Amino acid sequence: MTASGGTAGSIDLDRLAPDADRVASTIATLAAGFTESAEPGWTRRVFSDAYRASRGWTLALMRDAGLEAHLDPAGNVVGVLPGRNRSAPPLMTGSHTDTVHGGGRFDGIVGVVGAVEVARRLLESGQQLERDLVVVDFLGEEANPFGVSCVGSRSIAGLLDAEHLGRRDDEGRRLGDVMTTFGLDPGAALAQGWSPGSLHGYVELHVEQGPVLETAGTSIGVVTAIAGIERLFARFTGRADHAGTMPMDQRRDALAAAAAAVVAVEREGCGAPVHGVSTVGRFESSPGALNVVPDEARVWAEIRSTEAAWLTGARRRVVDAIGAEAERRGVTTVVDWLNDQDPVRADPLVQDLIGSSADSLGLRWQAVPSGAGHDAAHLAHLGPMGMIFIPSVGGRSHCPEELSQTDHVAEGVHVLAATLVAMDARSGAVTSA
Amino acid sequence: MTASGGTAGSIDLDRLAPDADRVASTIATLAAGFTESAEPGWTRRVFSDAYRASRGWTLALMRDAGLEAHLDPAGNVVGVLPGRNRSAPPLMTGSHTDTVHGGGRFDGIVGVVGAVEVARRLLESGQQLERDLVVVDFLGEEANPFGVSCVGSRSIAGLLDAEHLGRRDDEGRRLGDVMTTFGLDPGAALAQGWSPGSLHGYVELHVEQGPVLETAGTSIGVVTAIAGIERLFARFTGRADHAGTMPMDQRRDALAAAAAAVVAVEREGCGAPVHGVSTVGRFESSPGALNVVPDEARVWAEIRSTEAAWLTGARRRVVDAIGAEAERRGVTTVVDWLNDQDPVRADPLVQDLIGSSADSLGLRWQAVPSGAGHDAAHLAHLGPMGMIFIPSVGGRSHCPEELSQTDHVAEGVHVLAATLVAMDARSGAVTSA
Repeated sequence: MTASGGTAGSIDLDRLAPDADRVASTIATLAAGFTESAEPGWTRRVFSDAYRASRGWTLALMRDAGLEAHLDPAGNVVGVLPGRNRSAPPLMTGSHTDTVHGGGRFDGIVGVVGAVEVARRLLESGQQLERDLVVVDFLGEEANPFGVSCVGSRSIAGLLDAEHLGRRDDEGRRLGDVMTTFGLDPGAALAQGWSPGSLHGYVELHVEQGPVLETAGTSIGVVTAIAGIERLFARFTGRADHAGTMPMDQRRDALAAAAAAVVAVEREGCGAPVHGVSTVGRFESSPGALNVVPDEARVWAEIRSTEAAWLTGARRRVVDAIGAEAERRGVTTVVDWLNDQDPVRADPLVQDLIGSSADSLGLRWQAVPSGAGHDAAHLAHLGPMGMIFIPSVGGRSHCPEELSQTDHVAEGVHVLAATLVAMDARSGAVTSA
Repeated sequence: MTASGGTAGSIDLDRLAPDADRVASTIATLAAGFTESAEPGWTRRVFSDAYRASRGWTLALMRDAGLEAHLDPAGNVVGVLPGRNRSAPPLMTGSHTDTVHGGGRFDGIVGVVGAVEVARRLLESGQQLERDLVVVDFLGEEANPFGVSCVGSRSIAGLLDAEHLGRRDDEGRRLGDVMTTFGLDPGAALAQGWSPGSLHGYVELHVEQGPVLETAGTSIGVVTAIAGIERLFARFTGRADHAGTMPMDQRRDALAAAAAAVVAVEREGCGAPVHGVSTVGRFESSPGALNVVPDEARVWAEIRSTEAAWLTGARRRVVDAIGAEAERRGVTTVVDWLNDQDPVRADPLVQDLIGSSADSLGLRWQAVPSGAGHDAAHLAHLGPMGMIFIPSVGGRSHCPEELSQTDHVAEGVHVLAATLVAMDARSGAVTSA
């Protein structure tokens, strides 16, 4: 860190500069010690054995840093750094340590290790916040086979419900039952939600997972909003025919109709305003014989945007396009949408505090949207929310090559510390609303 | 049969009218007794246990009909009905009894059971052809995991080669090894090929597998040509990215490129002259996570036509379209073509004899192309070839609902008998070439 930090209130920000090597080695230790060895990349999926083992490691990490830490009924690892005023609404920061299949070492993990480092530096420098600082490693942020992302943060935010627990994976297992088998308490996870307004503020440090910051040469992204996600499942039913004998104009080719739907979904994202994207992540068809016109196909897609109005229009246009492509091929469709998450705006004042904190540390920042979902979207229900992004090399994420440079990680941790200090120094709610 | 047949040479065609109930019950017996019980429809794939058991049944069927029958080294069931002149080039007829996965009861089977019925009726009516009549149930006509259709007819035609035997299925097994395990003699199968010109003629009865005859209300199709088949395998390699964070214009989406290729393949067939078709039968992509831009996709397609020039052009246009769709998405492709079969024209004089035989039995006929491949395409290397089609209900084939009405089957068998009699009566080669 070359920048001069200065002080915020009674806190000396320079003395909160993170130990970059310690942060990097902690990230490396988690990656080396707790991954699913039979899977590609740095896989650590929720409910896996590797994830189970890693929860103890996170708990020990927090305690070693001096936090009062415990596992809550939803499987969150929660550490508390007491402030001078234990009765004031606390600050919260954190992220997650689970990964997607074949994922990387930084998504989520930077926010947990960074949050612990902030607490550790406060203690090491003998400085104390006015308010309690709650550091959380939220359970299961990534998409899982039950279709319930952000299990832990939903629970704390009071947004986990019985319907979520009843959802089943491909093998028919209920999420609630799998949580019980994992040693959690689903009933208590439903009941433990904090009250809206109970947080003085929530800030999360995260890797960008996209190329915007790197391309612009910017160190810090101030998140303006977290994109809403609409998920689509479409089933196409046609008719199996001999691929050599059935004339083209008499076919009911489910695969061709589904492929045209893929192109339509892609076109929607390409025509979107800034920060609208659309993706078909999964495509299946049957029977899969080379000389049989396929009679069934299935498409899983999603569209994302920070703009609710565009999402609504995109949903309608995608349905219309799928229907038209299927109809002209004599193929019937069933199209289901699942609203995974509505767009969530970051609190404007928290955005300002992140930007001014970066300024005070001499770091370039810019406003960016978040195309990815985050625990922060749920914590916004409890108080003013903000997010800090750091650059991802090549914009890569959800892959083994995912990387954020150690300098960038340390800068992000320092901005996180400075932002928390700035929020702590404000009396009353940290919000512009 | 209401039509009057008359005689051809010394043979009374009326007395060759098939026993329609016997033919129907024989077809039903095969379906009921020899299918893969764990698979959908009337599955009887080559090298399956059900198929193995059915070979003995076919052998017994031929012997019960009075044929001198044996299994040849390639697994063909070959029955001979001696003619008056054992040294004259014989006539051959037959088809196959294997099915595709989830296939039906008539494709191929009608031609085997029908051929046996013709021989049986000759014997039962005390009438003898001048020439030997060879009836064959060819091994493995349908596409198989080794990519070698028409294994048995290729062997008899001298077109099976060592490269075919070396091809491997998805589990890495060589076709030749699987043939050995099945009790066959691959070396002898390569060597047993008959000499070009050794057949006086070959005629095959088959279900149309398409809707043309039924739509026109015609009983008999006289096949003009068997379509050539070009098979395509295309692999698309892109880059895995987070589906929420990677902007549309910076993606390398392999699934989207492959879907656009599917649409391009379909468009090619739709723009074809009569009897050109194109089909993507199989599509795979990975990793298949809902929030990851897919980095790999695979497409298996085929194009078919009786017109060799159109096939050549279509291959080039499909490659160009796939390349363009991939390039504009930053996706790399590997495209392999496999010429499965060139178009084969039926002998014009045999076509004439089929048509005049149908006329003599009072049956409406029309000329039709064959979009499907057939054993007959290979037997054309040994002598003049022709094919007789009968209607398929709804044009359906390669599915459990595949059906040809008993009356139509019987009419086809009668035309087969009449055509063989007419060919037998011609001295010298039955050809216009």
